Amino acid sequence: MALPVETFFLHPEAHGTLQSQIQQMIAQGILSGRFQRGEKLPSTRKLATHLGVSRITVTIAYTELLANDYLTSRGRSGYFVSDNAPVPPAFAPREVGPDAVDWTRAIGQRFSGGDTVRKPPDWGGYRYPFIYGQADPALFDHANWRLCALKALGQKDFTALTTDYYDQDDPQLIEFIARHTLPRRGITARPEQILITLGAQNALWLTTQVLLTQRRRAALEDPCYHALRDILSQSRCHMTPVRVDADGMPPDAIPPDTDVIFTTPSHQCPTTNTMPMHRRHDLLERAADMDALIVEDDYEFEMSFLRSPSPALKSLDTDGRVIYVGSFSKSLFPGLRLGYLVGSEPFIREARALRASVLRHPPGHVQRTAAYFLSLGHHDALIRRMGNALHERREVMARALSHHGLQIAGQGAHGGSSFWMRAPEAVDTQELARRLQAKGVLIESGHAFFSGSARPKSYYRLAYSSIPANRIGKGIDLLADEIRSMAHLGISEPANWP
Amino acid sequence: MALPVETFFLHPEAHGTLQSQIQQMIAQGILSGRFQRGEKLPSTRKLATHLGVSRITVTIAYTELLANDYLTSRGRSGYFVSDNAPVPPAFAPREVGPDAVDWTRAIGQRFSGGDTVRKPPDWGGYRYPFIYGQADPALFDHANWRLCALKALGQKDFTALTTDYYDQDDPQLIEFIARHTLPRRGITARPEQILITLGAQNALWLTTQVLLTQRRRAALEDPCYHALRDILSQSRCHMTPVRVDADGMPPDAIPPDTDVIFTTPSHQCPTTNTMPMHRRHDLLERAADMDALIVEDDYEFEMSFLRSPSPALKSLDTDGRVIYVGSFSKSLFPGLRLGYLVGSEPFIREARALRASVLRHPPGHVQRTAAYFLSLGHHDALIRRMGNALHERREVMARALSHHGLQIAGQGAHGGSSFWMRAPEAVDTQELARRLQAKGVLIESGHAFFSGSARPKSYYRLAYSSIPANRIGKGIDLLADEIRSMAHLGISEPANWP
Repeated sequence: MALPVETFFLHPEAHGTLQSQIQQMIAQGILSGRFQRGEKLPSTRKLATHLGVSRITVTIAYTELLANDYLTSRGRSGYFVSDNAPVPPAFAPREVGPDAVDWTRAIGQRFSGGDTVRKPPDWGGYRYPFIYGQADPALFDHANWRLCALKALGQKDFTALTTDYYDQDDPQLIEFIARHTLPRRGITARPEQILITLGAQNALWLTTQVLLTQRRRAALEDPCYHALRDILSQSRCHMTPVRVDADGMPPDAIPPDTDVIFTTPSHQCPTTNTMPMHRRHDLLERAADMDALIVEDDYEFEMSFLRSPSPALKSLDTDGRVIYVGSFSKSLFPGLRLGYLVGSEPFIREARALRASVLRHPPGHVQRTAAYFLSLGHHDALIRRMGNALHERREVMARALSHHGLQIAGQGAHGGSSFWMRAPEAVDTQELARRLQAKGVLIESGHAFFSGSARPKSYYRLAYSSIPANRIGKGIDLLADEIRSMAHLGISEPANWP
Repeated sequence: MALPVETFFLHPEAHGTLQSQIQQMIAQGILSGRFQRGEKLPSTRKLATHLGVSRITVTIAYTELLANDYLTSRGRSGYFVSDNAPVPPAFAPREVGPDAVDWTRAIGQRFSGGDTVRKPPDWGGYRYPFIYGQADPALFDHANWRLCALKALGQKDFTALTTDYYDQDDPQLIEFIARHTLPRRGITARPEQILITLGAQNALWLTTQVLLTQRRRAALEDPCYHALRDILSQSRCHMTPVRVDADGMPPDAIPPDTDVIFTTPSHQCPTTNTMPMHRRHDLLERAADMDALIVEDDYEFEMSFLRSPSPALKSLDTDGRVIYVGSFSKSLFPGLRLGYLVGSEPFIREARALRASVLRHPPGHVQRTAAYFLSLGHHDALIRRMGNALHERREVMARALSHHGLQIAGQGAHGGSSFWMRAPEAVDTQELARRLQAKGVLIESGHAFFSGSARPKSYYRLAYSSIPANRIGKGIDLLADEIRSMAHLGISEPANWP
């Protein structure tokens, strides 16, 4: 039987080149059973005319399908579905009715309902995206990343790509971090003291699982990274939020029965404040007095374009008391999912065993690509370029904020990629964010960063990591207008607004 | 100051091209503070002579470093470390003494000490690797994987590469699995019923966390995949190992108070037995009677080259009682760390929230690459090629085993990639494996698959997924010799052996 050319169509919203679309359409026709073994395909000329593409495009697609044994060619008679082509299963999928399972009972532990705020997935389509922590295509060194990824896909790296590392990591990445990244933070660590994680999120999660139980107490900054609070809540440990001041977490306010202190000394998240050296020493002393551990999330140290970063807390730690969390999400991109933990061996050993149980290891190709990008110096070059761009954006934004008299509640002494802002008391920033979104302006309400039920409503975060300098002014204009109009009407509850 | 050419050296064991090694050496010299701003580099001619490489190689490396602003060129005076080059931190890393932390007390939960057996990392260097579950470079379609990865690195896919999906996944991969992969197993699922995981390991772990608590009971196959037992032990649920027979897990032997049943119907792991249709129906009925859930690990269904795979247990499930675990580790490669969960929405919702908390999402690039490889038909073509090769290897191995009268304890009716073997009672297969390793033969002792303290010692697994057909005969000869010599001497305890 000849397959009628009419049954071939390209999906108008399909991705990829025309050639790969054709290839895909035919492969899927075979896999789904629509095209069967021995059936004749339209000639390349006929299909090309029908689809409105060039004949060579169809010919290349057919040739690929020949190579994969989906099709065979019988000389001048044309192309046929190969006798070796895969056969779809004989059993048809069945439609299923409503579940007979009582899921309320069946689910043993619930994890949904956390605080983590999501950006709109299409944030790139907004004109004024003051959103935090996303890669800016205008700044990222895509070309060299591509080259490094390609290198890591080479025949020589086949093992690094495909192997099951079990609980281990790519030795090249570990070595680079140990020899070059950590020394720049003043940290010395042996490979056994380093564990690669699926981003800083995964590092914080592993740490929490190893160190905390329902009987132990964690002190966390308030406000803080909301995902950390979700992680701690899920561990069911006791939690004490410690209100931060302009110098970060005040050591005296940490309860004496604390087991683990979570802190972000380089740039406090979200206020961006930097903890001064004297307080770092005080914090270490306080922790030693209580025999508590400290988890240092050094998530944005690379963005220190105003002055050199302070040494990490971990570099001042002679007790082995500090567990250090590093991340490539900010300096490379969050979709990479790559971070690392540095700590004493007994701790890393347990974190490694847990990681192995949960997911084995981060994909080999991702690790090797990062290893190349780092060791060829591209990462450092990128950070300098990003630093220059962020510096410019920050100055533009600072001028615009000052022009409108908007209140800055926190700004990193070393740089960073955002301002922590405070609106007039009457303004609920969740409502503010909703209204601005309709105008193409994305800001982050500060609610989710705070602990407890009486969360301050007037804070918000303005990042400049994903918005070009020349749009900042106009975006801040729109923001300022909206704040003025809301403050003027005394709106704090969205329900009051018609 | 001019940097003396003598301080430049290429590490004899370095990776990469000469050009990238030179680039790396200079970048790292700058980053570590050895080379300082304004210092003059050796001329390209001088450095080329010193390193024994061509001058053009050095020139290209210098040019790259110029582009990245590590170096500047001052016309005829040569190359200098750029004034914009990164400055190493002023604070020197300090050596740390022994920890002041009592880690025995500080660690809240222990995860180390599980059963999972590791292959030697250099298994590829052994002549007779009868090891399971690793990618064979001779079979894998490296060229097309590379093309798909490259495509996924393109400018058009920048968002898929870099974005923070939070708790979501690559929609293209989800769509392909829903529309093409699952229907081939007889399963219908909507995107909200699918979650991408970091391999099947991660899928099993998430499932365990959501469904089990210290008060609930899991039934698992005995023997079973050892990592599953580790996962269940860590969850501290009650565990009942159910001894499998030639048809897999016998439903009647499952205790009536079981909450979750873990099973591998397609190819029981490790015995490779396939559960017949009538038992699948019995198992579903038994689970419905007890109101238990079933977790179906369909880890190797693609390797069905002897006859078509049976429909998945999930395809027979009208209650929403079955949670399905799929994996690309066997059909692509384990270092990919990609698998998926299919289940009812209330379950997937919790698994998704937990995954987001633990690691957010599998890296975007990995997901998109797999989506392309699948949708272009390469995956199916690869499976057919692998099936043909495995079929041949299996026949060669079956002949060799029969020639030596070695006892096969289990072999998949549909194919698979291993035989489950039994040595004479006197032979401890852990000792057997150790002895064979010294002779270049890698086998897996069966100990770790069994539950409890009185584990049978005479089982072992022989896989043919990573050994070429022409080495199987000789490898089995060596195995048979060793078994004969151990059985003859009645060795069961390694300690008895001089």
